[in-house]
Order: sequence, then structure tokens, then C-alpha cells
Amino acid sequence: MKKLINDPKNVVSEAMEGFSQAHADHVRLNPNPLFLSRADAPRPGKVGLVSGGGSGHEPLHAGYVGVGMLDAAVPGPMFTSPTPEAIIPATLAANAGAGVVHIVKNYTGDVLNFETAAEMAQAEGVEVRTVLVNDDVAVEDSLYTAGRRGVAGTVLVEKIAGAAAERGDDLETVAAIGKRVNDNVRSMGVALSACTVPHAGVPSFELGEDEMEIGIGIHGEPGRHKVPMEDANGIAARLLEPVLADLAPQAGDKVLLFVNGMGGTPASELYIVYRQAAKLLAQADLVVARSLVGNYITALDMQGCSISVLRLDPEMTELWDAPVNTPALRWGM
Amino acid sequence: MKKLINDPKNVVSEAMEGFSQAHADHVRLNPNPLFLSRADAPRPGKVGLVSGGGSGHEPLHAGYVGVGMLDAAVPGPMFTSPTPEAIIPATLAANAGAGVVHIVKNYTGDVLNFETAAEMAQAEGVEVRTVLVNDDVAVEDSLYTAGRRGVAGTVLVEKIAGAAAERGDDLETVAAIGKRVNDNVRSMGVALSACTVPHAGVPSFELGEDEMEIGIGIHGEPGRHKVPMEDANGIAARLLEPVLADLAPQAGDKVLLFVNGMGGTPASELYIVYRQAAKLLAQADLVVARSLVGNYITALDMQGCSISVLRLDPEMTELWDAPVNTPALRWGM
Repeated sequence: MKKLINDPKNVVSEAMEGFSQAHADHVRLNPNPLFLSRADAPRPGKVGLVSGGGSGHEPLHAGYVGVGMLDAAVPGPMFTSPTPEAIIPATLAANAGAGVVHIVKNYTGDVLNFETAAEMAQAEGVEVRTVLVNDDVAVEDSLYTAGRRGVAGTVLVEKIAGAAAERGDDLETVAAIGKRVNDNVRSMGVALSACTVPHAGVPSFELGEDEMEIGIGIHGEPGRHKVPMEDANGIAARLLEPVLADLAPQAGDKVLLFVNGMGGTPASELYIVYRQAAKLLAQADLVVARSLVGNYITALDMQGCSISVLRLDPEMTELWDAPVNTPALRWGM
Repeated sequence: MKKLINDPKNVVSEAMEGFSQAHADHVRLNPNPLFLSRADAPRPGKVGLVSGGGSGHEPLHAGYVGVGMLDAAVPGPMFTSPTPEAIIPATLAANAGAGVVHIVKNYTGDVLNFETAAEMAQAEGVEVRTVLVNDDVAVEDSLYTAGRRGVAGTVLVEKIAGAAAERGDDLETVAAIGKRVNDNVRSMGVALSACTVPHAGVPSFELGEDEMEIGIGIHGEPGRHKVPMEDANGIAARLLEPVLADLAPQAGDKVLLFVNGMGGTPASELYIVYRQAAKLLAQADLVVARSLVGNYITALDMQGCSISVLRLDPEMTELWDAPVNTPALRWGM
């Protein structure tokens, strides 16, 4: 294992320290318990948005703290849920009097710890609603999950619900919009290589020189099956087919096409996958109205990508286009 | 070799096709000869900025086409200079009547081809000035270069000269500002792994399991020496020391600290390097006034990073902060 790290135990704390220094215009670091919150206090009466989860998926979630997206992010240890002891103060910090929405990827540990934190915050007088993200069509249950896993759709939920909160929507409305995004997005991923967790020091699974893992999770956990390598066009079709089968869009629907890199794959390859996915969507009489391509939710140094399709409606499109100013997603301001 | 590609011969054209579709709000693709230009025509009288070079360094250069940065980008074949036949029409497309600045990384092929293209464009009545970027302190000559190589400093030259052009500076002024950025920036990189060029199919060099290559170029070409792996803090010091020795800043100088990922390294590791580099700069009585961290100029899937330090003056700082709206760098609008 070769990594740009010091003691593997300190990867998350040192990375977040550097992150908060490099992005001091966006975020403030609370070192212990570890969470990040917006550098500018959200205005009184704005619904707060909090997300979090195991580290190793950067820029998720810390990269999305800022205007028009999250008010606080809670990075757990590598691929390990943050504890309620960190989620609670992050929730309190994000509260500006209008309550807080927790955006939670569907992993057993995350669900339990955010649930406990929500109860404790409510006991302190902060109303909390939870949006569970479970967009991965690959598997029903997994190593880490009861039900479908939350993967790349999380970024879209955070952006669109964040814009709703920023424009002044109330707690129930922001939570309902977040749920609507989750209901309308499906994702599926592929790995060409494993990732290596710093404190483990060895790749998290084995893949032969001519194999890929279809339906991979964002922790390198198994997906549907290992199959022989194919070209990018074949892979795009293989990922998109179950996404569309499950989403069941109508001809003429407008969609957002999101090709996400797992961390170790060059941008050029993501655009080659995007090209074919866009072509296949057009052939299915769908309109690619918005796009996102890049490393937005990763699995350390894993090579591979995921494809997500979000069925848009006019309000979601407007909220997607709304200004956002975070370290990892920024436009319109 | 496992990559998300189709025919290795078509990697660049397919990637740029997907790129131009995903970023149709920013760029237009000219497929043959291959170049990209701004989707919105620059206003009459604006100096045009054109850059280009071998592909494999994405998001450089296509990702920087847009308001406040480049007017056109010319991607050559993988790690191979674009020909004058592509640079000439890109130059003509970027000309809005006030001349064009070529931003050229110092590699022999790039220098020759941009020089030929500049002569041809001038023969067609377009004034061209050239800013040569040679910020890499690692080696004096290399496999691809007479003199120092142009590496990560290129991104800073494109941003700051682009802002000067956008505010309406004339041809000589924009070129002079670009040169001033190059004169004040130094870079040095490290590789933990090699990259694999698609049409080659095998890693471009060998590194032992406990080795790293110090002073690596952005094509995986040799640097200063192979040395045993160290921790991130040791690597940060090893990269920063020759940068500062060459730049020779004064105590109290304000600098921009740029930690660039080579493509295959997780964001968390880049922030760990940033953290230590910022600490070392503070110890040297330098003020880190601006920061940039991420994959901005890459070598395909190579693992590693570079550190660049730019000595700022008030005008460069103002131009750095100016609005920019490109696929890969965006703020203020």
C-alpha cells in the first residue's frame, strides 16, 4: 500500500484539518467531536441540512457544506458511521430555529446512529426529519445494509433539498423534496479495481486482470457479479439497463444524467461512459436535460464509475439550477 | 490494463465528444481538426486565450474553456502535441479582433507546433503572443523538454491571464501578466504509481512496492530520483523545499498554495499533503493567502501529487479572485 498519509489512524482528522484550512471561506472545523459546519451562519429561520457517514467517499459530505447545500457534515472514521455524539452537536449547530433535515445513506450503522441523534436533538427542542437515500438498484441487501444502499443519488438529494432550504421552504417541504429526489433517482456502479483502506493496508477484494465487479458498492463491497471486462460502451449499457428498468421512465421524460467516478478513474474515461449513456438515453426517447460528470462520491482509490439517472420535474430542475457555493459544487454565485 | 474505454485510438475523440455534450453550456466541439471553443462568443475586442497540449491531463485544458479563462483548447493525441493544423483554426476562432495569447507548456513538440501555428495565424492577420510555462523545478532537461517542463503552474497562468483578458486588458498586457505568473510560480511532483497510456496498455515506468519517484513529470517521465516511500509529511517537505529554494520568497510574502492530484489519488490524501505544506509555509513566515486543492492537471490514473507555490501580488490576487465559469473551475458567477 502506497498512500500520501501519515499514521493511518489520523487520516480522517488530518484530511479534514487540511480541508477546513483550504476552504476556510466555506467551512469551519469542529475537531472533537469531528464535524464541519458552514462558515457563514445560516440565516435565522432557514431549515438546516445535515449529512454524514463513513469517510473515504470525498468530496462527500464535507465538500458539500456551504450556501445552497449542507449546513453541516459529519465524517465518521474510514467507511464507518459517525457516532451520535458527533451527529448531535452538528445537528444543533445547523439549527437556525426551523428544524433540521438529516440526509442519511441507507447503511445500518448510519441509520441507527442518525436515528439516535435525531431523538436526542428532538429532546433538546430541535425538530428533525430524515431523508433516507437508497438509490442503488444493484442489490436488495448487502454486507452493510438492510434494503438498498444509498450511493451517488445522495449528491443530488443534498443539492436539491439544499436549494429548497436556501429559498426558505419549511421543514416538511424540504424533507418532502429530498424524498422526492430519492424516489426518482436510481444508480448502479462498476469497479475495475479494489480500493485499499489505509488501516487495512491491503485491497478490500480481489479482481482478476480481466474481471470487473458489476453492482459494486461504495465501500468495495460485493455487487451483483464479477464478469469479464468489456469496453466502455458495453459497460454503460450494462449499468444503465437495470437503472432504467427500475426507474421505468416515460418517453419524453427529462432526466439528469450523472456519471460518477469512484476515485481512481481518469476524467476522460468518465466522459466516454457519459457519451454512450447519453446516446442510450436518447435512443430510449429520454431527454438529458442536465448532466453531472466527475468524482463526486468515491471509494478512495477505486477505479470504476456509477451511472445515476434522476427523473426531473420543473421544480427539481429549478432547484438543481439554483446557486450553490460549496468546495466541491459551485455555480451561479 | 483495465480502462473504461472503447478502441484505444478513439479515447481522445470520444472523451471530448462526451465532454462537449455534458458541458454544452460552456463549450462547443470542433471535431475535425479537434478543438473546443467557448459556447458564448467572446465580446468583440477581447483578447483571446488559447492553450493545448497532449491529452491525458484532464481537466487541462478543455475543462478551462469558458468565461474568465480560455477561449479555446486544443487537445492533442494522448501525451502528444496537437498539430498546427488544429492550433491554427482554434486561434482564429478565439480571435475577437484584439489578438490571441497562446499559453504553451514547455515541451519541445508543443513549442514547435504552437510557434508554427502562431506564424500562420499572424500571416492571416491575427496578432499572437506566447506565454511559455516552465514552472517545474525538478529537472532542467527531460525526455520531452529543453529547459524546465511546464506543469501545474499552467492552471494558474490560464486563470490569471484569462481574468486579465476578460476585464479588457490589451494583448501585450495579458501576455505580460501571464509571464509574470509563470515567473512567480514553482512546482514539484511525486508519483507513487505509474500511469498507463491506453494505446500502450502497460504502465509507463516501474516503481517498486516501497518506492516513489520524486520530481515526476506529468507524462510519467523520470524526475530526479527514486527513493523509498515516506509519510505524507515527509513528502510535503521534500517537494516544498526545492520549490522554495528556487522561488526564494521573502518573509511576509503572500502566496497561493496549490496541491494538485495526478489523477489516481483520493482527495483526502491531497488535503493531508496540503495541511503539512501550509504548516511549513507558515513556519517559513509566508502567508497562504489563496489555496487550490484537487485534480486540476493529471497524468491519467497516476497516483501522486504536485505542490506549487505562486508568489502573489495585489493584482494577481485580484485576477485570481475574479469570476470564472468553466467546467472545471468556477466561482463568482
